[in-house]
Amino acid sequence: MSRPTILVANDDGYQAKGFDALIRALSPLGDIIAIAPERAQSSTSHAITMREPVRITLQSQREGCTVYSCSGMPADCVKFAMHELMTQYPDLIATGINHGENASCSALYSGTVAAAMEGCMYHVPSIAFSLLNHLPDAEFETYLPFVRSLAGQTLEKGLPDGTCLNVNIPDLPYESIQGVRICRAAKGRWKEVFDRRTDPYGRVYYWLTGYFINEEPEATDTDQWALEHQYISIVLEETGTDLTHFKALDSLQNDYFIF
Amino acid sequence: MSRPTILVANDDGYQAKGFDALIRALSPLGDIIAIAPERAQSSTSHAITMREPVRITLQSQREGCTVYSCSGMPADCVKFAMHELMTQYPDLIATGINHGENASCSALYSGTVAAAMEGCMYHVPSIAFSLLNHLPDAEFETYLPFVRSLAGQTLEKGLPDGTCLNVNIPDLPYESIQGVRICRAAKGRWKEVFDRRTDPYGRVYYWLTGYFINEEPEATDTDQWALEHQYISIVLEETGTDLTHFKALDSLQNDYFIF
Repeated sequence: MSRPTILVANDDGYQAKGFDALIRALSPLGDIIAIAPERAQSSTSHAITMREPVRITLQSQREGCTVYSCSGMPADCVKFAMHELMTQYPDLIATGINHGENASCSALYSGTVAAAMEGCMYHVPSIAFSLLNHLPDAEFETYLPFVRSLAGQTLEKGLPDGTCLNVNIPDLPYESIQGVRICRAAKGRWKEVFDRRTDPYGRVYYWLTGYFINEEPEATDTDQWALEHQYISIVLEETGTDLTHFKALDSLQNDYFIF
Repeated sequence: MSRPTILVANDDGYQAKGFDALIRALSPLGDIIAIAPERAQSSTSHAITMREPVRITLQSQREGCTVYSCSGMPADCVKFAMHELMTQYPDLIATGINHGENASCSALYSGTVAAAMEGCMYHVPSIAFSLLNHLPDAEFETYLPFVRSLAGQTLEKGLPDGTCLNVNIPDLPYESIQGVRICRAAKGRWKEVFDRRTDPYGRVYYWLTGYFINEEPEATDTDQWALEHQYISIVLEETGTDLTHFKALDSLQNDYFIF
């Protein structure tokens, strides 16, 4: 069997420490094509670039690992790699390691999770990794064996078609971790707080801030619960190939609207 | 009963013809707060603005209708309106009318659909409207009675909690429309084509283009089928409050991964 090919992407940019950490974690498993935005593009969700041209820059190349930067968004990185940098689809797509949490509804805003979702729309097993530390100098080293193990098992066993894994890792010493839990995304949302300021020229501006509201804090099978109890959380995510809410659809079929 | 309040947003920008059309369609139903990006922000999905300050500009004000522009993304518009422009959540959120199709997986990339999804994360009935014509001078007028009717019925009857409506309208004379179908999103994806060019300074750049692949062309209960057969399509969308793929989750529970 030939050596697997692994596509690595992120949303924090090609210079992010977590990007380098993910490349190093996965290099023993296969040949790496890595591509990430030129600049930090966190919270850009599934945005793609259609009003500007996209530029690609080769950043480094060594045996088994080539790194590019892209002027576009995380999803652009995956699209470009799949169509222009590779002769066939990769065996695995891994994104991150994100600087900061992407659990519950935060996954919706994440470029790192969107890049993994983009991958599995092409039926390629895809995993998004995030560490619960958003700082540029976050420490990833202690988790690289876990990352490699999960990626290796996914390469071997695959994933259910049309899904990807969203993995969140508590920012704790590895020995404090209680284990790994496969869970569902907690129902919740962000409560926004707009921090109103005035610039030196007298013009008002706002910073978007806020805090997360867990709408089911008692549930023990959610990613939020796992992370709060020092577990690594793995959620099997919907991918956007089918956005229909089937449970609710039935209630709308019987002449709910009349035209 | 007091007059309803309706929040209107889009992704094509506050100067888009479809935004004005939506405001005019809904004005008879309630008081309008309308807010849209300063510039076109189509295909920005659920991106939010956290690395730049957000600025808001009052664009126009008349009895029952106030229009703002926002330097941020479509989802920022909804967040800002809900928290800073309104004393309580609106009775309805309507987005669009988008210049261009947002059916099947295209909804995933759409800022107009994301703005509606953002709305229903706050448990407010939300509808995204799109016309299958992406040109700036697209003709919306003939569909405004339908838009008003659907919005009015939604105000009256509500929607299943945690869902929003994604409405796509064929670009046809109204008399050619065969009817309105509640359907599911077709499974499909975009096949990207990167148009490679060289700029006047010798540097390579790419335009992201492509075509849609319907992965189930025979299915007659999808939005793609409806639109191809001259029906208006209404899909009840998942909202991102719960991203877990439950059907596939069971297959992963039994020690699928070992650590």
